Formats: sequence, C-alpha cells, structure tokens
Amino acid sequence: MGRKMATSELVALLSDREDQTPPGRIVRALSERGTLSASQIANVTGLAKSTVSTTLNALRKSGIVVEGGSLENGRSIGAGRPATALTLNPRAGTCIGIGIGLFHIQLIVADLAHTILSDQSRTLAADYTPEEALATIEALLVESYADPQLSRDAVLGVGVAIAGPVNPQDGRILRGGGLPTWAGLDIRQLVEPLFDCPIFADNESNCAAIAEMMWGSAQGHEDFVLFKLDLGVGGAIVSHGRVITGVAGAAGEFGHMSIDPEGDLCRCGNRGCLELTASFVRPLEMASRRFGYALQIADVIARAQGGDVGCRRLIEDTAEAAGRGLGIICATVNPGLIVIGGSMARAGDMLLGPLAASYEKHALVKSTDVPGVARTRIVAGTFARSDACLGAVGLVLRHHNRLG
Amino acid sequence: MGRKMATSELVALLSDREDQTPPGRIVRALSERGTLSASQIANVTGLAKSTVSTTLNALRKSGIVVEGGSLENGRSIGAGRPATALTLNPRAGTCIGIGIGLFHIQLIVADLAHTILSDQSRTLAADYTPEEALATIEALLVESYADPQLSRDAVLGVGVAIAGPVNPQDGRILRGGGLPTWAGLDIRQLVEPLFDCPIFADNESNCAAIAEMMWGSAQGHEDFVLFKLDLGVGGAIVSHGRVITGVAGAAGEFGHMSIDPEGDLCRCGNRGCLELTASFVRPLEMASRRFGYALQIADVIARAQGGDVGCRRLIEDTAEAAGRGLGIICATVNPGLIVIGGSMARAGDMLLGPLAASYEKHALVKSTDVPGVARTRIVAGTFARSDACLGAVGLVLRHHNRLG
Repeated sequence: MGRKMATSELVALLSDREDQTPPGRIVRALSERGTLSASQIANVTGLAKSTVSTTLNALRKSGIVVEGGSLENGRSIGAGRPATALTLNPRAGTCIGIGIGLFHIQLIVADLAHTILSDQSRTLAADYTPEEALATIEALLVESYADPQLSRDAVLGVGVAIAGPVNPQDGRILRGGGLPTWAGLDIRQLVEPLFDCPIFADNESNCAAIAEMMWGSAQGHEDFVLFKLDLGVGGAIVSHGRVITGVAGAAGEFGHMSIDPEGDLCRCGNRGCLELTASFVRPLEMASRRFGYALQIADVIARAQGGDVGCRRLIEDTAEAAGRGLGIICATVNPGLIVIGGSMARAGDMLLGPLAASYEKHALVKSTDVPGVARTRIVAGTFARSDACLGAVGLVLRHHNRLG
Repeated sequence: MGRKMATSELVALLSDREDQTPPGRIVRALSERGTLSASQIANVTGLAKSTVSTTLNALRKSGIVVEGGSLENGRSIGAGRPATALTLNPRAGTCIGIGIGLFHIQLIVADLAHTILSDQSRTLAADYTPEEALATIEALLVESYADPQLSRDAVLGVGVAIAGPVNPQDGRILRGGGLPTWAGLDIRQLVEPLFDCPIFADNESNCAAIAEMMWGSAQGHEDFVLFKLDLGVGGAIVSHGRVITGVAGAAGEFGHMSIDPEGDLCRCGNRGCLELTASFVRPLEMASRRFGYALQIADVIARAQGGDVGCRRLIEDTAEAAGRGLGIICATVNPGLIVIGGSMARAGDMLLGPLAASYEKHALVKSTDVPGVARTRIVAGTFARSDACLGAVGLVLRHHNRLG
C-alpha cells in the first residue's frame, strides 16, 4: 500500500474524533510512546488483548503500523521469547517541531517512530519580527527537506514552541512573555501559509516538559513540574500526562508569581515577581562587572567549577531564591518530581544541592514528614537548548494544544 | 432480582479493574453524574450508541440501572419526546460521607441516584481524640440507619473528609494540618472496624471541590480552583475533573504558601505563610477586642452588612490578602474559575468585589490582555458547612482516592 493512503488514514486516526475507537487508541499510544509491544499496547490503552490483536492486524495490513524499533522492556514476561517491537510506519509521514526562541529559531523533523531526521537552527538578532521568523522557518524547511527521501507532502503536523505564554483558546501570544513585540500575534496565522496540516503550539517551557516526559528525565512520570532557570524563569505543570495550560495559557509561569507587592517592577508589569530574584540576569551583571566583560551563564558555571568562589556564590544564591519559589509550588501542586530545565541546570550539583536544601526549608512537606515515596525528588533536565523544539515535535505526536 | 446481587455486581463494576469495559464505563458515568439519558451516556463515555443501548439493556435487566430522576437537558434534540432518565438503582445500596472537622463530625448517607437519605452531625470539643471520633461516627451511624428501609449491609463505600492534608499513598494524616494531634494517623485503620467496604479519604478542601463540581458552583467545570477562606486557608486544584492531590497530599494547601521567609512563624513550621494574612483569625481577634466579646465570622459579616465600617474593613483587608495569594495561583495553574469556599464566602460581594480587584492587580494575566472566555471568573461556593461531607459522598461516587 502506498504512503499517501497510509498518511491520510493516519491523520484521521490521530484526530480527536477517533480517540475512543480501538484503532484510534492504538495509533495514539504508538504516536505518544514511539515503540511498544502488543501486550504493552494492551496495558497502555486498556483494550482487551484480543481487540488489540485484531486491530493491529488491520493496522499492519494497511501499512500504518510496522515492526521495528527496540523495546525498553521488550521481553514477554516468563516466555523468554522477545516480543515484537511495533511502531507507526516511519515512512507514512513526518512531524515538524519549530522552536521560536528569543535569539534563535530551530526546526526538527522527526518520523512517527520518534527518529530525528533533521535538526537545523539559525541565530537571529534580538526583537526579530514575525516576518523575519517566517522567512527563517521557510529557509530551514528548504534545508531540512533537501533530502529527496523526505517529502513535504507527507507532513502530519507542525508543533510550535514559543518563548512566551500562548492562549490555548485562540493561539495568540500573551503579553508578559519573552517576545514582547509579539504580544497578540496569532501563531496559526503566522505559520499557516507554509503548511497544509494540523498546527499545534504551546510555550517553550510546556514543550520542554513534554520533551522531558517523552524522552528525558521525566520518562515514566505522568505528574511532575518542570522548573526553568535561565535568563527568564518559567516552567510547566504536568498532571496525568497532560500539560496544564491554564485558561489563558499562563499556567506554569512560575517566574511571574508576584511574591512581594512592594518589590521591584517586573517586565510583566507586576511587582516583586520570583523572576527578579531567581533569574540569572542580575548575577550575570554582577559577574560581568567583576570580570570586566559580558559573561554568559555557561562562563559563570565554568568559572565556578574552576574554583571561583564568587561565581559559585551567585549560583548558590539563585538556588536559594529558586527553592523559595519551589516551596510555594509544593503548597499548590506538591509534585513528586521537579525537573530543573534551562541553562542553569548545567551547573549540576552545585545548583541542585543548595536548591534542594532551600526547598526543604521553605516547603510545607518536610522530608521527615513522609515516607520516601511521598517525597519530592529534584533532578536536572536531560535536554538543554533543544528541549523546546523537541517538545514541539512532541506536541504533534501527543496531539496536545491543537490550534483551530 | 434481589438487592444483594445488584450490590455485589455494582461494587465489581465500580472497581478500577472494570473502568475500561462498556458496563464499567456506564456505571461509572451514572455514579458520577447521578442521572443521564442514553444519549448523554454515549457523549460522556465516548461509547458508540449501539454499545450503550446493548449494555444498558443488560444493566437494566440485572437491576443495576433503573429509570428515574430528572434530566437537566432531558429532551432528545428535535424529537420533542422526552428522553428516559436513567440512574443507578437507588435501592442497590448506599454511600456514606463522613466529615471530620475541627469541632464537629458530620455523617451523610446518600443513594446511588445522588439523593440524600440522612444528614446528622455532632459538635465536639477542640482537640478531640481519634477514639472519641470513632465513638461519634458509630453513634451517628446508628441514628442514620435507624430507618428500617436502610441497611448497613448494602454500604457500597465510605468517604472521609478530614480537616488536614491526607497522604494519598498511605492514607495517613500529614503534619501541618488542622488536626495537629492526629498527625501520622492512618484513616483507613481508624474507620475500618466499622465498615466492610471500600474506604476513600481526602482533605476537606479537596472534598469541598468535588461537592462544588458535582452539585454546586463548579457544575459543568472540569478545571477550576477552590479557595477556602475561613479560620484556616486552604483549597484544591481540579484538572480534567480530578482533584490534584500531590505526591504527599499537600496540593491545594494555598494557606501554606510561604511568601515571606522573614515573616511570622506559622503553625505549619514555616514563616510568612499566606494563612497568616488571609485567614480570619487575626481580624476576629481585633473585632473581639473592639466589641468586648468573642465574635464568630458570621457575627463580623452580619455587623458589616449592618453598616459597621470596621467590620467591613476587616473583610476587605482579608480580600486584598487573598487576592495576592490568588495572583500567585494565576501564575501556577491559571484557572478559568475560582470558587471561594469557607465561612468567609457568606460575605458575598462585600468580599468578592475587593477580592476580584486585588486578583486583577496581582495576577499575571490582566482582564484587558485576553478575550472574555480566557478570563478568570471568581464566584462564591454553593455549600457552606456541609461541603466537605457532601464531597466525601462524592469521593465514593467518583471513586477518588481509594485507600488500600
């Protein structure tokens, strides 16, 4: 059976209308997890093994599901015989993830078996316009699909990760985000001219959380918090495997918890936001004054690792402030796992040690209050710069936050 | 068919093992919603109409589902003929909700069609012991089941609402809650001697949220926040129709967001918690000093409504502090609906007006940033004193937080 037909059937099965039918549920499960055995599919979907078997036969016949990939827990229990690894047909089409950051745009093409086929990015000047963004995406697309094996006709969906909150109701960028001149912009309208397929979008921290859940530090976790420490402070709350977007897309905007109403004015318009004390903007200014040139976060981390006491102190103070913020998050969602994302995560234990101590001090639940399974673990994220763009691919694979 | 048999089949169908089968899904939907038509059942469960029809025939034959109750939107569209209202057989068994508050214990018996059959409560002295609680529950049970029509043999489940966070992993009461001498107590062990049926438990604010969602101000909403303003400050976050409990049961403990690490010591052991400024304990002390006797919250509200400027000011100041806390909640879960629970909700617009203004001031998303549908609405809860105990019945009907 030809690729075209498998693609159109797949698009139909991935749609929300089909998410209760057995083939829809199986395709959704494979899209989300990449590779599964038949018995894992039965577990994940809750379908009877006989239903899974019959439906898989039909899906394999029509070329939507194929053998391939490798299973993490691939052996049938007790049987000794390795289970067959199944994926969606990687040739049935591609997914595109686009990361729209403050200073760069990244574009990843992946197939439905979760293999990255292309990963390109371009650096842009601060405050670039939507028109420049569109031209850059177009150029990255041409580069990415230069391979004659790849066809732009078979794009199943496009995910967009934006540096700023996205209103899930209308796909517009909210005021108060990282791209201040883009407030009010309709993301679907922006990228629609380039694509004839479903478009998904969310803010970069929500996408980063999806990437960590699908392939990174939060694999196997359906309930966790991503906390991003960088020049900005943000994050995401994942509950039952879904990112909480909030009614206007502002959920997980931890940097804009207004803690001190008498504090400094924040770029969001409120006063005393967490970002003012927990972002690394002010520490970078201090370090730059001390060393006489403009340091980046990586420079401060490298100097701290090299033994510079002042740089180490700046990281520790950020950890203390972040721990206070996470204490507030304990009393709101009380996550079992907190994944630290953003450039600061690369500081490793130098950050995580004092951060965990500060969390223990400020959180409602102390580690001595509860048994180990009920304690909050704090770990570094797996992905650094690419987390948002990988998560944008994840938006498509998980059918999260479709626009229109 | 006898009641006994319907009961045991029902218990099996309500169990988590059956929640993917068509009869399990239909029974679960009726348990959660009370009364539905066949086509509403198809919508809610996502099952095909033919599957619903066949399964309903079998469930009606075995006496598990019966006609009865009234439908909110009961007419078939266009047909003119009223749709048949279906409920679980109210005679198949009863559910018990127990509210364990700071100074009283309440016990509600309801049938599976969501009809309250009995509602009893007793006042207790502060810091009563678990043994006194058990004796009180036993006495309330005897009173409630005095009616010969009701049988204690057919209790399908018991829900317990506790004044304090409950660890969902082991059913133990956390330190830092409202019943300080009860910390570490295992709720299942406490009530198990009285019942031979599944036991569910959660803290009183989480239960209140379930009550508001099933029958009150949050009906029709699957994503909202309950914010409780009383002598304590608490709350709950509902996402996709499920209360977020948190890994240790501390989710929604908004009163213990530690906002000012240099602030006063809170009863939870941290400093500068929201509860210190947003609870009505200090305002009551001030009012009592002024009027020369110990006022209750209702007295202050009555005096404010009668024109007393000082009492009105105390309510407004509490609203201002609560609005700050809700601003932080905007940047974490950004709810579309906030239901104000607790005794302070009875102050009505005198509280809600300044509270909404304070929220607008401190929240990341301003009402001018987004269209109406993406704004947060703040409303008073429907239930006052009984919300926790009603929600405990809801725990059973929704199979939420089963212990063991």
